[in-house]
Amino acid sequence: MHDPTPATRRPLEGLRVIDLTRALAGPYATLLLAGLGAQVIKVEDPRGGDLARENSPYVGRDGVTVERGHSDDVSISHLSRARGKMGVSLNFKAPGARAIFQDLCRDADIVVENFTAGTADRLGVGYQAAREANPRIIYCSLSGFGADDAEGGKAMDVIIQALSGAMYTSGDPDAPPVRMGIPVADMLAPVFGVIGILSALEQRHRTGHGQHVDVSMLGALTSFVAIENWSALAAAGMPARTGLTVQRLSPFGVFECADGYVAIVAVHEKLARGLFQAMGAPELSDDPRFASRDARVANAPVLEAHITAWSRNLPTADVVRLLEAQGVPAAPVRHPEEALSDPRVMARAETMPIAHPSYPHRSELRTSGIPIRFSDAETGFDPTLPISVGEHNHQIYRELLGYDDARIAELRAAGVI
Amino acid sequence: MHDPTPATRRPLEGLRVIDLTRALAGPYATLLLAGLGAQVIKVEDPRGGDLARENSPYVGRDGVTVERGHSDDVSISHLSRARGKMGVSLNFKAPGARAIFQDLCRDADIVVENFTAGTADRLGVGYQAAREANPRIIYCSLSGFGADDAEGGKAMDVIIQALSGAMYTSGDPDAPPVRMGIPVADMLAPVFGVIGILSALEQRHRTGHGQHVDVSMLGALTSFVAIENWSALAAAGMPARTGLTVQRLSPFGVFECADGYVAIVAVHEKLARGLFQAMGAPELSDDPRFASRDARVANAPVLEAHITAWSRNLPTADVVRLLEAQGVPAAPVRHPEEALSDPRVMARAETMPIAHPSYPHRSELRTSGIPIRFSDAETGFDPTLPISVGEHNHQIYRELLGYDDARIAELRAAGVI
Repeated sequence: MHDPTPATRRPLEGLRVIDLTRALAGPYATLLLAGLGAQVIKVEDPRGGDLARENSPYVGRDGVTVERGHSDDVSISHLSRARGKMGVSLNFKAPGARAIFQDLCRDADIVVENFTAGTADRLGVGYQAAREANPRIIYCSLSGFGADDAEGGKAMDVIIQALSGAMYTSGDPDAPPVRMGIPVADMLAPVFGVIGILSALEQRHRTGHGQHVDVSMLGALTSFVAIENWSALAAAGMPARTGLTVQRLSPFGVFECADGYVAIVAVHEKLARGLFQAMGAPELSDDPRFASRDARVANAPVLEAHITAWSRNLPTADVVRLLEAQGVPAAPVRHPEEALSDPRVMARAETMPIAHPSYPHRSELRTSGIPIRFSDAETGFDPTLPISVGEHNHQIYRELLGYDDARIAELRAAGVI
Repeated sequence: MHDPTPATRRPLEGLRVIDLTRALAGPYATLLLAGLGAQVIKVEDPRGGDLARENSPYVGRDGVTVERGHSDDVSISHLSRARGKMGVSLNFKAPGARAIFQDLCRDADIVVENFTAGTADRLGVGYQAAREANPRIIYCSLSGFGADDAEGGKAMDVIIQALSGAMYTSGDPDAPPVRMGIPVADMLAPVFGVIGILSALEQRHRTGHGQHVDVSMLGALTSFVAIENWSALAAAGMPARTGLTVQRLSPFGVFECADGYVAIVAVHEKLARGLFQAMGAPELSDDPRFASRDARVANAPVLEAHITAWSRNLPTADVVRLLEAQGVPAAPVRHPEEALSDPRVMARAETMPIAHPSYPHRSELRTSGIPIRFSDAETGFDPTLPISVGEHNHQIYRELLGYDDARIAELRAAGVI
């Protein structure tokens, strides 16, 4: 069923993932594994499946809609996150579910789950159950505060953004903190989960056995925040949040234009001269307030006012063009839709189109790709997607595990699958 | 020199990395590899080394200082990012440097570089040179726009935040965009670089040969932005940026307290009731404006005003305690220093202490750890650090590569190392 030719087509070809995840953090981890070539079998509760299936907006025969209008409308979240995965149904709370889970693990390499800490064990689908069936299994748990969190705290992205310090670091010094618009806490934990899984695979080549990999959303995002050495900045009298510009690097930051905003980096001498040229004010290079890096930092507010007085009267595109002509790094602050359609990004499949399988022409949607290019491998998704819960039960339970039709019918009738 | 016992101590034990990186994005990739157990040999220009060595603040005999006061003061950036690495010097532009680079590659597994696209090839230390020396080498390039970028654009974190759409998505609908305080563009590309390297290693176990792995900062961050389906939100009439709260999930977001801010998630019926209880206003559950999820979304501004009227008179800690008592997810917006010292995060080594080797007690500094826990492996850093450029020249050039003393003296005299 999964026999790529040549064997090198995608880097993770031949690996099988049992995917117990739901919402965003977990499914993003298995999405990356699928895009890198692993076979992913998504396991969903027969009574409704992944809650992300209920996320508005939907797409279907009427295009994109806020409410589900037809039974075959699909949440765009599900369409995006379940790409390349196969889907089976299994009610973990039903009698016999643990043994079926173990059957799935027996010939698999990886399990991923993102239940609240402790839940997978309680449901009988934790690391112990998987290892009993297959000591080579690599079992990855993603949770809010780590698998050892006794309180079993609920972790949503905004909660983790608040706790990690990430939210505090963004925005003006005297204004409220800023929630990042991209769910960075939800997305970072799975990325580190994949690093953990692949590291454990490398170790398995040496030792022959698998292990438990445990990533915390709070820990993943806090480790990112920690690269900045905040206590040292504080000890040196430097503020933790500086808004759109960073005055200790002046001129550096985001400036207003007539129709938007522009990011400018002119930290070094040559770049500052280029900026003054672009502004049509080369004489500023000789102004003692701006003639050296230290002077520019000391007079940052005045310098920033000069820049804004120039940039706010021009279209963003003109400001960027004038700066680039002088070799000064500059970029427009783009709307996400424009960013997702950047020709460079599309050419490298870092974003990619998705469509409802039955109504591909009713909407134009782009979503995340795999932002890694290999010289001797491809990335990308098999054209498989569990539109309905249990869509691939026959392929997996009948063909892969060898359950006979009578048993499958019985499991279905009993609500186990 | 690198003989761990037991062999399972860290997952990537036995792998060797030649590290040509500088600044942040590249060194963070090799920092992750070092913390996972790989031996990392950092190669620096003998004329000054990694520019991050000049990043203020510094630490030394006077503790943390904005300016370098003593010759053995070290940039905290360098202290953090070079942990666990060995350091050699090599001037790529000197005659014979290419052959020395190839000697380093011969018995290595991985090379990482983050020059501007095309530069490594021009310097004679690109993928072709590495592969000539060792066809099993996995060579990872991190750049602003990808290794195929003909323009060789300079990419700083703020430029990529602007181009990717990430900046646009944060902040109030009618306010300027918001620069994220953590350098998320600089940090995401290396994380995907490590996933690419480990995936290529897995493929090498099948094929026996290495390959080039190419990650773009713009692509990595844009792929994160793309998980949100912005065009679908726009088509459904939903805004791309909503500030501190998200009204379509109301009550959801960040609210003002007497001494700070609190994140609250009360999207579902049970949580909304808990919130009203915590507010001492259980009657709001019966108010037709707030009695159902749809009603709460329709009346979000009024509801948010009710919440703020309550929360802004109480300390953040009280608001969190009252909400948690009702089972409502809530968290204080913490300063990074407080976040880095969270006991859960410290216990899991997701942040960890660093110190100047000669003056360990002159300051208390915490930095990023490896946010992954393994049941059968450790993570962490060897107690090695190239304080000076070329610190480990003897160990690498003499002991590992077997260059004789005369040759090393000659290379040093000629400015090659």
